[in-house]
Amino acid sequence: MFHFLQKHIQEIINPTDDEFEIIQSFFVKKKFRKRQFLIQEHQPVHEIFLIEKGILKSSIIDSSGKEHILQFAASNWWISDFAGFFKQETSSLAVDCIEDSEVYALSYEDLNLLCRKVPVMEHFFRVKSNFGYVALQQRILSLMSKTAKERYEDFIKQYPGFTDHIPKQLIASYLGVSRETLSRLYS
Amino acid sequence: MFHFLQKHIQEIINPTDDEFEIIQSFFVKKKFRKRQFLIQEHQPVHEIFLIEKGILKSSIIDSSGKEHILQFAASNWWISDFAGFFKQETSSLAVDCIEDSEVYALSYEDLNLLCRKVPVMEHFFRVKSNFGYVALQQRILSLMSKTAKERYEDFIKQYPGFTDHIPKQLIASYLGVSRETLSRLYS
Repeated sequence: MFHFLQKHIQEIINPTDDEFEIIQSFFVKKKFRKRQFLIQEHQPVHEIFLIEKGILKSSIIDSSGKEHILQFAASNWWISDFAGFFKQETSSLAVDCIEDSEVYALSYEDLNLLCRKVPVMEHFFRVKSNFGYVALQQRILSLMSKTAKERYEDFIKQYPGFTDHIPKQLIASYLGVSRETLSRLYS
Repeated sequence: MFHFLQKHIQEIINPTDDEFEIIQSFFVKKKFRKRQFLIQEHQPVHEIFLIEKGILKSSIIDSSGKEHILQFAASNWWISDFAGFFKQETSSLAVDCIEDSEVYALSYEDLNLLCRKVPVMEHFFRVKSNFGYVALQQRILSLMSKTAKERYEDFIKQYPGFTDHIPKQLIASYLGVSRETLSRLYS
Protein backbone atom coordinates (compact mmCIF):
# COMPACT_ATOMS: atom_id res chain seq x y z
CA MET A 1 0.00 0.00 0.00
CA PHE A 2 2.77 2.47 0.83
CA HIS A 3 5.05 1.34 -1.98
CA PHE A 4 4.26 4.52 -3.94
CA LEU A 5 5.17 6.74 -0.99
CA GLN A 6 8.44 4.87 -0.44
CA LYS A 7 9.43 5.18 -4.09
CA HIS A 8 8.59 8.89 -4.09
CA ILE A 9 10.76 9.56 -1.03
CA GLN A 10 13.62 7.42 -2.32
CA GLU A 11 13.96 9.76 -5.29
CA ILE A 12 15.72 12.12 -2.86
CA ILE A 13 16.77 10.27 0.31
CA ASN A 14 17.36 6.69 1.42
CA PRO A 15 15.67 6.06 4.79
CA THR A 16 16.27 2.75 6.63
CA ASP A 17 13.32 0.31 6.93
CA ASP A 18 12.81 1.43 10.53
CA GLU A 19 12.77 5.08 9.49
CA PHE A 20 10.35 4.32 6.71
CA GLU A 21 7.99 2.63 9.18
CA ILE A 22 7.89 5.91 11.10
CA ILE A 23 7.57 8.04 7.96
CA GLN A 24 4.57 6.19 6.56
CA SER A 25 2.79 6.27 9.93
CA PHE A 26 2.45 10.07 9.53
CA PHE A 27 0.67 9.97 6.16
CA VAL A 28 -3.06 9.44 5.73
CA LYS A 29 -4.36 8.06 2.43
CA LYS A 30 -7.44 9.89 1.13
CA LYS A 31 -9.68 9.57 -1.94
CA PHE A 32 -11.53 12.41 -3.62
CA ARG A 33 -14.04 12.48 -6.49
CA LYS A 34 -13.85 14.66 -9.57
CA ARG A 35 -14.83 18.29 -8.69
CA GLN A 36 -14.41 17.65 -4.94
CA PHE A 37 -12.45 20.30 -3.00
CA LEU A 38 -9.41 19.43 -0.85
CA ILE A 39 -9.02 23.07 0.17
CA GLN A 40 -11.56 25.87 -0.04
CA GLU A 41 -10.76 29.59 -0.07
CA HIS A 42 -10.66 31.51 3.22
CA GLN A 43 -10.40 28.33 5.33
CA PRO A 44 -7.54 27.15 7.57
CA VAL A 45 -5.02 25.02 5.64
CA HIS A 46 -4.32 21.88 7.63
CA GLU A 47 -2.55 19.61 5.15
CA ILE A 48 -0.26 19.20 2.16
CA PHE A 49 -1.01 16.41 -0.32
CA LEU A 50 1.20 14.05 -2.30
CA ILE A 51 -0.77 12.80 -5.31
CA GLU A 52 -0.71 9.08 -6.16
CA LYS A 53 -3.46 9.11 -8.81
CA GLY A 54 -5.57 11.75 -10.55
CA ILE A 55 -5.20 15.37 -11.59
CA LEU A 56 -5.80 18.40 -9.38
CA LYS A 57 -5.51 22.16 -9.68
CA SER A 58 -4.98 25.14 -7.39
CA SER A 59 -6.71 28.38 -8.32
CA ILE A 60 -7.95 31.74 -7.13
CA ILE A 61 -11.23 33.52 -7.87
CA ASP A 62 -10.75 37.26 -8.44
CA SER A 63 -13.16 40.00 -7.33
CA SER A 64 -15.03 39.76 -10.65
CA GLY A 65 -15.62 36.02 -10.16
CA LYS A 66 -13.07 34.88 -12.74
CA GLU A 67 -10.95 31.78 -11.98
CA HIS A 68 -7.14 32.00 -12.37
CA ILE A 69 -5.24 28.72 -12.21
CA LEU A 70 -1.91 28.73 -10.39
CA GLN A 71 -0.93 25.09 -10.92
CA PHE A 72 -1.99 21.68 -12.14
CA ALA A 73 -0.65 18.57 -10.39
CA ALA A 74 -0.72 14.83 -11.11
CA SER A 75 0.91 11.64 -9.78
CA ASN A 76 4.14 12.25 -7.83
CA TRP A 77 3.46 16.00 -7.35
CA TRP A 78 2.55 17.80 -4.13
CA ILE A 79 -0.32 20.27 -3.93
CA SER A 80 -1.81 22.58 -1.28
CA ASP A 81 -2.14 26.26 -0.57
CA PHE A 82 1.47 26.27 0.60
CA ALA A 83 1.35 29.92 1.65
CA GLY A 84 -1.63 29.28 3.91
CA PHE A 85 -0.06 26.04 5.14
CA PHE A 86 3.41 27.36 6.00
CA LYS A 87 2.13 30.58 7.53
CA GLN A 88 -0.79 28.74 9.16
CA GLU A 89 -3.19 31.33 7.81
CA THR A 90 -6.45 30.91 5.94
CA SER A 91 -6.19 29.96 2.27
CA SER A 92 -6.10 32.32 -0.71
CA LEU A 93 -6.35 29.37 -3.07
CA ALA A 94 -8.81 26.58 -3.65
CA VAL A 95 -7.55 23.07 -4.51
CA ASP A 96 -9.92 20.68 -6.30
CA CYS A 97 -9.94 17.53 -8.44
CA ILE A 98 -10.11 17.55 -12.25
CA GLU A 99 -10.33 13.72 -12.10
CA ASP A 100 -11.01 11.22 -9.29
CA SER A 101 -7.85 11.33 -7.17
CA GLU A 102 -5.94 9.46 -4.45
CA VAL A 103 -3.53 11.39 -2.25
CA TYR A 104 -1.36 11.08 0.86
CA ALA A 105 -2.16 13.85 3.34
CA LEU A 106 0.35 15.23 5.88
CA SER A 107 -0.71 17.74 8.54
CA TYR A 108 1.33 20.76 9.68
CA GLU A 109 2.01 19.35 13.15
CA ASP A 110 2.94 15.97 11.68
CA LEU A 111 5.31 17.53 9.12
CA ASN A 112 7.28 19.21 11.89
CA LEU A 113 7.15 16.18 14.20
CA LEU A 114 8.25 13.88 11.35
CA CYS A 115 11.26 16.10 10.60
CA ARG A 116 12.31 15.95 14.24
CA LYS A 117 11.86 12.16 14.51
CA VAL A 118 13.46 11.34 11.14
CA PRO A 119 15.97 14.12 10.38
CA VAL A 120 16.66 12.97 6.80
CA MET A 121 13.09 14.10 6.07
CA GLU A 122 14.18 17.66 6.83
CA HIS A 123 16.53 17.34 3.85
CA PHE A 124 13.77 15.75 1.75
CA PHE A 125 11.38 18.64 2.38
CA ARG A 126 14.09 21.26 1.88
CA VAL A 127 14.85 19.86 -1.56
CA LYS A 128 11.12 19.59 -2.39
CA SER A 129 10.57 23.18 -1.26
CA ASN A 130 13.48 24.36 -3.39
CA PHE A 131 12.03 22.68 -6.48
CA GLY A 132 8.57 24.06 -5.70
CA TYR A 133 10.17 27.51 -5.61
CA VAL A 134 11.83 26.85 -8.97
CA ALA A 135 8.49 25.90 -10.55
CA LEU A 136 6.84 29.07 -9.25
CA GLN A 137 9.72 31.24 -10.46
CA GLN A 138 9.35 29.78 -13.94
CA ARG A 139 5.59 30.36 -13.83
CA ILE A 140 6.04 33.99 -12.75
CA LEU A 141 8.66 34.78 -15.41
CA SER A 142 6.40 33.17 -17.97
CA LEU A 143 3.48 35.38 -16.86
CA MET A 144 5.59 38.54 -16.76
CA SER A 145 7.63 38.35 -19.90
CA LYS A 146 6.27 35.84 -22.40
CA THR A 147 3.71 35.86 -25.21
CA ALA A 148 0.65 33.57 -25.09
CA LYS A 149 2.36 31.24 -27.59
CA GLU A 150 5.53 31.01 -25.46
CA ARG A 151 3.42 30.44 -22.32
CA TYR A 152 1.61 27.60 -24.09
CA GLU A 153 4.96 26.02 -25.03
CA ASP A 154 6.11 26.33 -21.40
CA PHE A 155 2.88 24.63 -20.31
CA ILE A 156 3.45 21.68 -22.69
CA LYS A 157 7.00 21.32 -21.38
CA GLN A 158 6.06 21.56 -17.69
CA TYR A 159 3.04 19.28 -17.95
CA PRO A 160 3.94 16.62 -20.52
CA GLY A 161 0.95 14.37 -21.25
CA PHE A 162 -1.48 16.59 -19.30
CA THR A 163 -3.12 18.24 -22.32
CA ASP A 164 -5.30 15.19 -23.08
CA HIS A 165 -6.62 15.09 -19.51
CA ILE A 166 -7.33 18.75 -18.84
CA PRO A 167 -10.36 20.54 -20.35
CA LYS A 168 -9.25 23.26 -22.77
CA GLN A 169 -11.17 25.88 -20.80
CA LEU A 170 -8.89 25.24 -17.81
CA ILE A 171 -5.73 25.37 -19.91
CA ALA A 172 -6.91 28.76 -21.25
CA SER A 173 -7.47 29.95 -17.68
CA TYR A 174 -3.97 28.75 -16.66
CA LEU A 175 -2.42 30.60 -19.59
CA GLY A 176 -4.48 33.74 -19.02
CA VAL A 177 -5.91 33.70 -22.56
CA SER A 178 -9.39 33.27 -24.02
CA ARG A 179 -10.66 29.91 -25.29
CA GLU A 180 -10.44 31.30 -28.85
CA THR A 181 -6.80 32.38 -28.47
CA LEU A 182 -5.97 28.91 -27.13
CA SER A 183 -7.51 27.26 -30.23
CA ARG A 184 -5.21 29.34 -32.41
CA LEU A 185 -2.18 28.24 -30.33
CA TYR A 186 -3.11 24.57 -30.80
CA SER A 187 -3.12 24.76 -34.58
CA MET B 1 31.74 41.13 12.12
CA PHE B 2 29.44 38.10 11.97
CA HIS B 3 26.99 39.42 14.55
CA PHE B 4 24.47 40.21 11.79
CA LEU B 5 24.67 36.66 10.41
CA GLN B 6 24.22 35.16 13.86
CA LYS B 7 21.17 37.31 14.60
CA HIS B 8 19.64 36.42 11.23
CA ILE B 9 20.05 32.68 11.83
CA GLN B 10 18.79 32.90 15.41
CA GLU B 11 15.46 34.15 14.11
CA ILE B 12 14.77 30.50 13.23
CA ILE B 13 17.22 28.17 15.01
CA ASN B 14 19.52 28.29 18.01
CA PRO B 15 22.95 26.86 17.12
CA THR B 16 25.58 26.32 19.84
CA ASP B 17 28.69 28.54 19.80
CA ASP B 18 30.67 25.66 18.28
CA GLU B 19 28.06 25.18 15.57
CA PHE B 20 28.04 28.89 14.87
CA GLU B 21 31.84 28.84 14.41
CA ILE B 22 31.34 26.27 11.66
CA ILE B 23 28.36 28.08 10.12
CA GLN B 24 30.12 31.41 9.74
CA SER B 25 33.21 29.77 8.23
CA PHE B 26 31.10 28.89 5.17
CA PHE B 27 29.97 32.45 4.42
CA VAL B 28 32.03 34.97 2.46
CA LYS B 29 31.40 38.68 2.99
CA LYS B 30 31.29 40.67 -0.27
CA LYS B 31 30.74 44.31 -1.18
CA PHE B 32 29.14 45.57 -4.38
CA ARG B 33 28.67 49.09 -5.78
CA LYS B 34 25.40 50.56 -7.04
CA ARG B 35 24.56 49.11 -10.52
CA GLN B 36 27.06 46.26 -10.11
CA PHE B 37 25.80 42.77 -11.04
CA LEU B 38 25.99 39.81 -8.63
CA ILE B 39 24.47 37.50 -11.25
CA GLN B 40 24.21 38.03 -15.00
CA GLU B 41 21.76 36.28 -17.31
CA HIS B 42 22.78 33.03 -19.00
CA GLN B 43 25.68 32.41 -16.63
CA PRO B 44 26.17 29.59 -14.08
CA VAL B 45 24.70 30.49 -10.67
CA HIS B 46 27.28 29.73 -7.99
CA GLU B 47 25.92 31.50 -4.91
CA ILE B 48 22.98 32.69 -2.86
CA PHE B 49 23.31 35.98 -1.00
CA LEU B 50 22.09 37.16 2.40
CA ILE B 51 21.93 40.96 2.37
CA GLU B 52 23.35 42.92 5.32
CA LYS B 53 23.16 46.40 3.76
CA GLY B 54 21.80 47.92 0.57
CA ILE B 55 18.97 47.22 -1.87
CA LEU B 56 19.09 44.75 -4.77
CA LYS B 57 16.72 43.48 -7.42
CA SER B 58 16.30 40.38 -9.55
CA SER B 59 14.91 40.86 -13.06
CA ILE B 60 14.54 39.40 -16.53
CA ILE B 61 14.90 41.09 -19.91
CA ASP B 62 12.25 39.91 -22.41
CA SER B 63 12.82 39.36 -26.14
CA SER B 64 11.83 42.99 -26.86
CA GLY B 65 14.51 44.27 -24.43
CA LYS B 66 12.08 45.29 -21.67
CA GLU B 67 13.06 44.69 -18.03
CA HIS B 68 10.60 42.87 -15.74
CA ILE B 69 11.42 42.92 -12.02
CA LEU B 70 10.75 39.74 -10.07
CA GLN B 71 11.82 40.92 -6.61
CA PHE B 72 13.47 43.63 -4.58
CA ALA B 73 15.51 42.71 -1.50
CA ALA B 74 17.10 44.63 1.39
CA SER B 75 18.77 43.89 4.73
CA ASN B 76 17.91 40.45 6.17
CA TRP B 77 16.58 39.10 2.80
CA TRP B 78 18.15 36.48 0.57
CA ILE B 79 18.56 36.99 -3.17
CA SER B 80 19.83 34.94 -6.11
CA ASP B 81 18.49 33.24 -9.21
CA PHE B 82 17.24 30.40 -7.00
CA ALA B 83 16.01 28.37 -9.97
CA GLY B 84 19.44 28.43 -11.60
CA PHE B 85 21.11 27.84 -8.24
CA PHE B 86 19.03 24.86 -7.09
CA LYS B 87 18.98 23.20 -10.50
CA GLN B 88 22.62 24.18 -11.11
CA GLU B 89 21.68 25.57 -14.50
CA THR B 90 22.50 28.90 -16.10
CA SER B 91 20.54 31.91 -14.87
CA SER B 92 17.31 33.30 -16.35
CA LEU B 93 17.52 36.29 -14.04
CA ALA B 94 20.01 39.05 -13.44
CA VAL B 95 20.66 40.30 -9.89
CA ASP B 96 22.11 43.80 -9.41
CA CYS B 97 22.43 46.57 -6.84
CA ILE B 98 20.08 49.55 -6.61
CA GLU B 99 22.35 50.93 -3.86
CA ASP B 100 25.86 50.05 -2.63
CA SER B 101 25.43 46.71 -0.88
CA GLU B 102 27.12 44.28 1.52
CA VAL B 103 26.17 40.62 1.40
CA TYR B 104 27.13 37.19 2.75
CA ALA B 105 27.66 34.73 -0.11
CA LEU B 106 27.17 30.96 0.21
CA SER B 107 28.09 28.59 -2.62
CA TYR B 108 26.07 25.54 -3.73
CA GLU B 109 28.67 23.03 -2.53
CA ASP B 110 29.03 24.87 0.78
CA LEU B 111 25.27 25.00 1.34
CA ASN B 112 25.06 21.22 1.07
CA LEU B 113 28.22 20.62 3.09
CA LEU B 114 27.04 23.03 5.80
CA CYS B 115 23.69 21.19 6.10
CA ARG B 116 25.55 17.90 6.55
CA LYS B 117 27.99 19.31 9.13
CA VAL B 118 25.40 21.31 11.09
CA PRO B 119 22.05 19.53 10.66
CA VAL B 120 19.99 22.32 12.29
CA MET B 121 20.88 24.38 9.19
CA GLU B 122 18.85 21.93 7.11
CA HIS B 123 15.84 23.06 9.14
CA PHE B 124 16.85 26.72 8.78
CA PHE B 125 17.02 26.47 4.99
CA ARG B 126 13.80 24.45 4.76
CA VAL B 127 11.93 27.18 6.63
CA LYS B 128 13.61 29.91 4.54
CA SER B 129 12.70 28.07 1.33
CA ASN B 130 9.10 27.71 2.49
CA PHE B 131 8.83 31.44 3.12
CA GLY B 132 10.49 32.21 -0.21
CA TYR B 133 7.83 30.04 -1.82
CA VAL B 134 5.10 31.94 0.03
CA ALA B 135 6.43 35.30 -1.23
CA LEU B 136 6.47 34.05 -4.83
CA GLN B 137 2.96 32.64 -4.54
CA GLN B 138 1.72 36.02 -3.33
CA ARG B 139 3.53 37.74 -6.20
CA ILE B 140 2.02 35.38 -8.78
CA LEU B 141 -1.53 35.71 -7.46
CA SER B 142 -1.06 39.47 -7.44
CA LEU B 143 0.05 39.40 -11.10
CA MET B 144 -2.74 37.05 -12.18
CA SER B 145 -5.76 38.42 -10.44
CA LYS B 146 -5.28 41.96 -9.17
CA THR B 147 -5.66 45.46 -10.56
CA ALA B 148 -2.68 47.84 -10.79
CA LYS B 149 -3.95 49.67 -7.69
CA GLU B 150 -4.22 46.44 -5.68
CA ARG B 151 -0.73 45.38 -6.87
CA TYR B 152 0.65 48.72 -5.71
CA GLU B 153 -0.95 48.21 -2.28
CA ASP B 154 0.57 44.70 -2.10
CA PHE B 155 3.95 46.22 -2.96
CA ILE B 156 3.71 48.79 -0.15
CA LYS B 157 2.78 46.02 2.27
CA GLN B 158 5.53 43.61 1.17
CA TYR B 159 8.26 46.23 1.01
CA PRO B 160 7.55 48.67 3.85
CA GLY B 161 9.93 51.63 3.70
CA PHE B 162 11.34 50.66 0.29
CA THR B 163 9.42 53.24 -1.75
CA ASP B 164 11.76 56.09 -0.74
CA HIS B 165 14.83 54.11 -1.84
CA ILE B 166 13.70 52.65 -5.15
CA PRO B 167 13.44 54.80 -8.31
CA LYS B 168 9.81 55.09 -9.46
CA GLN B 169 10.72 53.68 -12.86
CA LEU B 170 11.73 50.40 -11.18
CA ILE B 171 8.57 50.26 -9.09
CA ALA B 172 6.55 50.70 -12.30
CA SER B 173 8.51 47.84 -13.88
CA TYR B 174 7.87 45.63 -10.83
CA LEU B 175 4.13 46.36 -10.98
CA GLY B 176 3.96 45.91 -14.74
CA VAL B 177 2.53 49.40 -15.31
CA SER B 178 3.73 52.52 -17.10
CA ARG B 179 5.42 55.36 -15.21
CA GLU B 180 2.29 57.49 -15.83
CA THR B 181 -0.05 54.87 -14.37
CA LEU B 182 2.18 54.62 -11.29
CA SER B 183 1.95 58.41 -10.74
CA ARG B 184 -1.84 58.09 -10.67
CA LEU B 185 -1.60 55.28 -8.07
CA TYR B 186 0.55 57.47 -5.82
CA SER B 187 -2.00 60.26 -5.65
